[in-house]
Amino acid sequence: MVKVSIAGASGYTGLELIRLLVNHPDVELTVLTSETFQGQTIAEVFPSLNGVVDLKLRPLDENIANDCGVLFLALPHTTAMSKVPAYLKYDCKVIDLSADYRLKDPKAYTDWYSVTHTNPELLEQVVYGLPELHREAIQSAQFIANPGCYPTSVILALAPLLQTGWVDLDSIISDSKSGVSGAGRKPSLNTQYSEVNEGVNPYGLADHRHTPEMEQELSAVAGKPVRLTFSPHLMPMTRGMLSTIYINLNQTLTDEKLVEHYRNFYKDESFIRVLNPGKFASTRYVLSSNFCDIGLKVDSRNQRLIITSAIDNLIKGASGQAIQNMNIMLGLDEKTGLMAPAIFP
Amino acid sequence: MVKVSIAGASGYTGLELIRLLVNHPDVELTVLTSETFQGQTIAEVFPSLNGVVDLKLRPLDENIANDCGVLFLALPHTTAMSKVPAYLKYDCKVIDLSADYRLKDPKAYTDWYSVTHTNPELLEQVVYGLPELHREAIQSAQFIANPGCYPTSVILALAPLLQTGWVDLDSIISDSKSGVSGAGRKPSLNTQYSEVNEGVNPYGLADHRHTPEMEQELSAVAGKPVRLTFSPHLMPMTRGMLSTIYINLNQTLTDEKLVEHYRNFYKDESFIRVLNPGKFASTRYVLSSNFCDIGLKVDSRNQRLIITSAIDNLIKGASGQAIQNMNIMLGLDEKTGLMAPAIFP
Amino acid sequence: MVKVSIAGASGYTGLELIRLLVNHPDVELTVLTSETFQGQTIAEVFPSLNGVVDLKLRPLDENIANDCGVLFLALPHTTAMSKVPAYLKYDCKVIDLSADYRLKDPKAYTDWYSVTHTNPELLEQVVYGLPELHREAIQSAQFIANPGCYPTSVILALAPLLQTGWVDLDSIISDSKSGVSGAGRKPSLNTQYSEVNEGVNPYGLADHRHTPEMEQELSAVAGKPVRLTFSPHLMPMTRGMLSTIYINLNQTLTDEKLVEHYRNFYKDESFIRVLNPGKFASTRYVLSSNFCDIGLKVDSRNQRLIITSAIDNLIKGASGQAIQNMNIMLGLDEKTGLMAPAIFP
Amino acid sequence: MVKVSIAGASGYTGLELIRLLVNHPDVELTVLTSETFQGQTIAEVFPSLNGVVDLKLRPLDENIANDCGVLFLALPHTTAMSKVPAYLKYDCKVIDLSADYRLKDPKAYTDWYSVTHTNPELLEQVVYGLPELHREAIQSAQFIANPGCYPTSVILALAPLLQTGWVDLDSIISDSKSGVSGAGRKPSLNTQYSEVNEGVNPYGLADHRHTPEMEQELSAVAGKPVRLTFSPHLMPMTRGMLSTIYINLNQTLTDEKLVEHYRNFYKDESFIRVLNPGKFASTRYVLSSNFCDIGLKVDSRNQRLIITSAIDNLIKGASGQAIQNMNIMLGLDEKTGLMAPAIFP
Repeated sequence: MVKVSIAGASGYTGLELIRLLVNHPDVELTVLTSETFQGQTIAEVFPSLNGVVDLKLRPLDENIANDCGVLFLALPHTTAMSKVPAYLKYDCKVIDLSADYRLKDPKAYTDWYSVTHTNPELLEQVVYGLPELHREAIQSAQFIANPGCYPTSVILALAPLLQTGWVDLDSIISDSKSGVSGAGRKPSLNTQYSEVNEGVNPYGLADHRHTPEMEQELSAVAGKPVRLTFSPHLMPMTRGMLSTIYINLNQTLTDEKLVEHYRNFYKDESFIRVLNPGKFASTRYVLSSNFCDIGLKVDSRNQRLIITSAIDNLIKGASGQAIQNMNIMLGLDEKTGLMAPAIFP
Repeated sequence: MVKVSIAGASGYTGLELIRLLVNHPDVELTVLTSETFQGQTIAEVFPSLNGVVDLKLRPLDENIANDCGVLFLALPHTTAMSKVPAYLKYDCKVIDLSADYRLKDPKAYTDWYSVTHTNPELLEQVVYGLPELHREAIQSAQFIANPGCYPTSVILALAPLLQTGWVDLDSIISDSKSGVSGAGRKPSLNTQYSEVNEGVNPYGLADHRHTPEMEQELSAVAGKPVRLTFSPHLMPMTRGMLSTIYINLNQTLTDEKLVEHYRNFYKDESFIRVLNPGKFASTRYVLSSNFCDIGLKVDSRNQRLIITSAIDNLIKGASGQAIQNMNIMLGLDEKTGLMAPAIFP
Repeated sequence: MVKVSIAGASGYTGLELIRLLVNHPDVELTVLTSETFQGQTIAEVFPSLNGVVDLKLRPLDENIANDCGVLFLALPHTTAMSKVPAYLKYDCKVIDLSADYRLKDPKAYTDWYSVTHTNPELLEQVVYGLPELHREAIQSAQFIANPGCYPTSVILALAPLLQTGWVDLDSIISDSKSGVSGAGRKPSLNTQYSEVNEGVNPYGLADHRHTPEMEQELSAVAGKPVRLTFSPHLMPMTRGMLSTIYINLNQTLTDEKLVEHYRNFYKDESFIRVLNPGKFASTRYVLSSNFCDIGLKVDSRNQRLIITSAIDNLIKGASGQAIQNMNIMLGLDEKTGLMAPAIFP
Repeated sequence: MVKVSIAGASGYTGLELIRLLVNHPDVELTVLTSETFQGQTIAEVFPSLNGVVDLKLRPLDENIANDCGVLFLALPHTTAMSKVPAYLKYDCKVIDLSADYRLKDPKAYTDWYSVTHTNPELLEQVVYGLPELHREAIQSAQFIANPGCYPTSVILALAPLLQTGWVDLDSIISDSKSGVSGAGRKPSLNTQYSEVNEGVNPYGLADHRHTPEMEQELSAVAGKPVRLTFSPHLMPMTRGMLSTIYINLNQTLTDEKLVEHYRNFYKDESFIRVLNPGKFASTRYVLSSNFCDIGLKVDSRNQRLIITSAIDNLIKGASGQAIQNMNIMLGLDEKTGLMAPAIFP
């Protein structure tokens, strides 16, 4: 049994890691940290864990990386940045769920996060943990930057197209819809029930921080600079993320041809489900699972492709993907602990 | 007091007409029809009307247009088509909330609705009831085709741009999000609570029936053919509609300049609120009102404009707009009975 | 036009007062206060008011009661307490929506709110503003304590029974369900979307602060001490309140007989709708209205009465009732500005 | 591997059985039936199962019990009744999720379901499958009537009290709140999104069909006839059930004493979590799990006990409990396949 610790266990991604790891056959939860709730048990913070886990929350210190097989960092952005170097000195794999090490270019980090990166030298070493694109590098990595939820839904939806020559790479638009849990557990007016219920709220149009992360990965796949217009929207639901993506085609293509191409591209992937022609992805069918559903629909009147891509923002968009990375790093079957079907209804 | 009748009073748009007309100072509700619930009072069907209206529902017959000032048709698509000619022989203004008379081209109707139009001669006479574009024609019309909810949100958002020369008319995409009430009251699996709750569901991508209605009106304003990609999504909420619209700019423009242009374009309009630069429209702030909020945001990195346009699908997207049309046809102040602010939270 | 001011305009009850008063024909909104948002316009805080009200928010000071016909206090509990005496020196009617002056017994206030009452002498003068019970006193009052939402739904449901001798007054239980907006606008973990959505949460069972307010009024009607078990629950919805109330019958009674008795008791009331025998009250049919729906159902197997009582917690449970009180105090028709039917769906 | 079949696989409880059994280590899904969707795969009906199960739906016939270890009947009420005798002739264990065999008294079945029972002789043989009360009988049973969701939440909450002599057995009231999924998947107006969203709807007060099932089991535990007032409410949420139960105490008792008593009563139970004194059960913390949370709170002012009892209506209230019964019948660890913690948020 590999010893696993979670720094920042009292947030939603921390809780989701616990929930998924509790029944993972090859690991053992050892340490959970929380500054706010230190001294309480995790089940006092999240009564859903009553009778399931009884670890006590303790404050975070460097010691956490000692005698630890895998350390998950579910800390707020910029908090993880300064702590990682110390952890990496230990014989401990580190998977950071924050945005701090996702951008290869420290200048981009400064531009979009308004903070100077304190450890730019690590940006070359860290692996961007999207298994479908970087599996080999993940296998031998000690340190993983786990992708954001929006980037996961967008990159997986576009990757198969970028080297085909079928599309106009200047025309990409992603209109993305997210459940409220993506905003984390810290109380704020914008995520109060009465404010977001029964409404659709766009936010961060054209300047959301996940944009450079998408552009970095899409450019790497395409082999040339790719930009996109990214429009996030807050939905009146707790979980789930749908990206509806638009891209111009430079030739006539059918849904069938595209589905075949995508299925071929992802033929070895366990968590990508390319839907039948004419079917659209919906968040409901991936809820509580690690699947990413992708639907393909050509708007033949306008020679434009509409891709729908659905994930559970807390699983394939965060904690499930982190565990998928862990499985790969530990040489386990990548699917271990992650094959629960979606809950419906 | 003008006598007003509603054919199809037991659906959601029928109910919304009643709710709004009950406090209208210049009209009197006279006849309400329903085949399904005939013999019952409207308050038995909708207990929200208890103590407010006590009319009994009766079956629809031609007689309804006799001694009637304004007749609203809130009937299913294709039902209204054959009945209208008979009503127009009376001295009665007719406002049809169905799609039957919205398309000027009977072939387009056949293509998108899979039905041959039985009264194509009326298509030249009917006025498309979007007051912001066709106010003068509405003033003198006897027969109005009331716009659909999606078209209202999209056309109002784009109209000010189409003759500016600032935009690429081949690049229009509308990613639209609708509350479930837009699907009407007839039970179906797709609108069952447990099926749509907590999920985002795209549907009818690239082939929704409201597309030709938008293209007809946008083309008329532009003075040349305009096409768009239209993507509707079902939201886990009862009311509200947001269209997030994308269009490429062929020159550098600022949010401020665009806001100024839109405010000038709509300077005499009571129900269009062009938001301050940097603000996005949200369905919550128009809920239960007749307002259409429009936000403008330039994605300067990609020289693309993102327009957000929010309405209450049952009010400015249906019954409120129908009453606005009625006010104009009757020579009343257009705002009469329609100035209730949105309900929040 | 009577000048009306609102202290605490940036909370939900403040906003609801504004929304309802904007179309009230006999009053004019003059001053709106907010400490947090001072300097902003109310429409910047609540974009739903764009184009409807453009008053700027200013800090609260004693001056607000000068040249003011009616002053609504929509302040947090204990904030209103110390300010009221100064306001009452002016020729200004004061309607306090907080709990500070609802309990006649200052000791009860201390017991349930853990604060000593600073102005117990005013408790004899203030009128508890439930028009259906205290209309005459309200007519001549300068100072009104506006009832809480839970007490309104419970007291109106029980008042007709208390002097009948038909029931066991020791057996009253109210199982009440409230929308989240009742908790106000201040961000807290308990009212975050992801925490309350898709769940039913009991809270404050057997020791909620609204209990003594109910017991005070029920005892006054009964003419002897009445106690009840009160169980509030937080519902996954924004607005609406349902109280399901249980009371043992000491004789055989029918639904019909009870409905007749209730209708007689409330025969002059505009906002009480006693439902037909066999019908239950539902929050949906009172949403956004000032109505209180009451359903009566005898459980004949157990000789127990089940009363369902539904209101909109922000209207009949707060701001609508406050305006009803204002209308009475000003000698206006009590229904003025309050007859909008419920919104459905 | 035991072969398992599900009759009625295209409803919600059928789907939930599949979802839970897919990862059960000791069974193999063999046959799924559906009349409506025969010929389709189960993943075409429920896309959540894409890539997880690819069985094709076939019509139900007697053959299903042949070469079958366990047969789950997830059929509508009254459909199961006539089919069961034929299945029992095979060497096949049958677990019926309908209400048809839950009542021991065929007259009660007729009274509450308005149908004459066709196989009353089986009512003596069948075991009511609530493991916490009838584990031993379940172990040796061939045929199980799986309890309803409301009865499960109510009976588990009350069982520990009934022989204590601490309570007044004539005073029991259960005010129960259920998610909409409990009404099944068949479209109806009452469960349309726009009808139930944002509202609390009582229904079936004092005459819901689950009442006699509760009274039968409570009476058996008490050793004398027990009746209760039962009030179900439809909640604006998909899953979850909370029963708030009231019972008069005939002596002074503390929360601590009651918690201790309940924990002792349920000391060997894996799925009952008796909460700490002062804590209330909430549906959110049992969602998607097989747990039943029970909270105990004395209203000492009124010498009354308030019990809160929360389950997931589709799991401990239906399919999870059915699998728990299967595990017992097969001699497996009762917890097998059922220990996934609740999903939160």
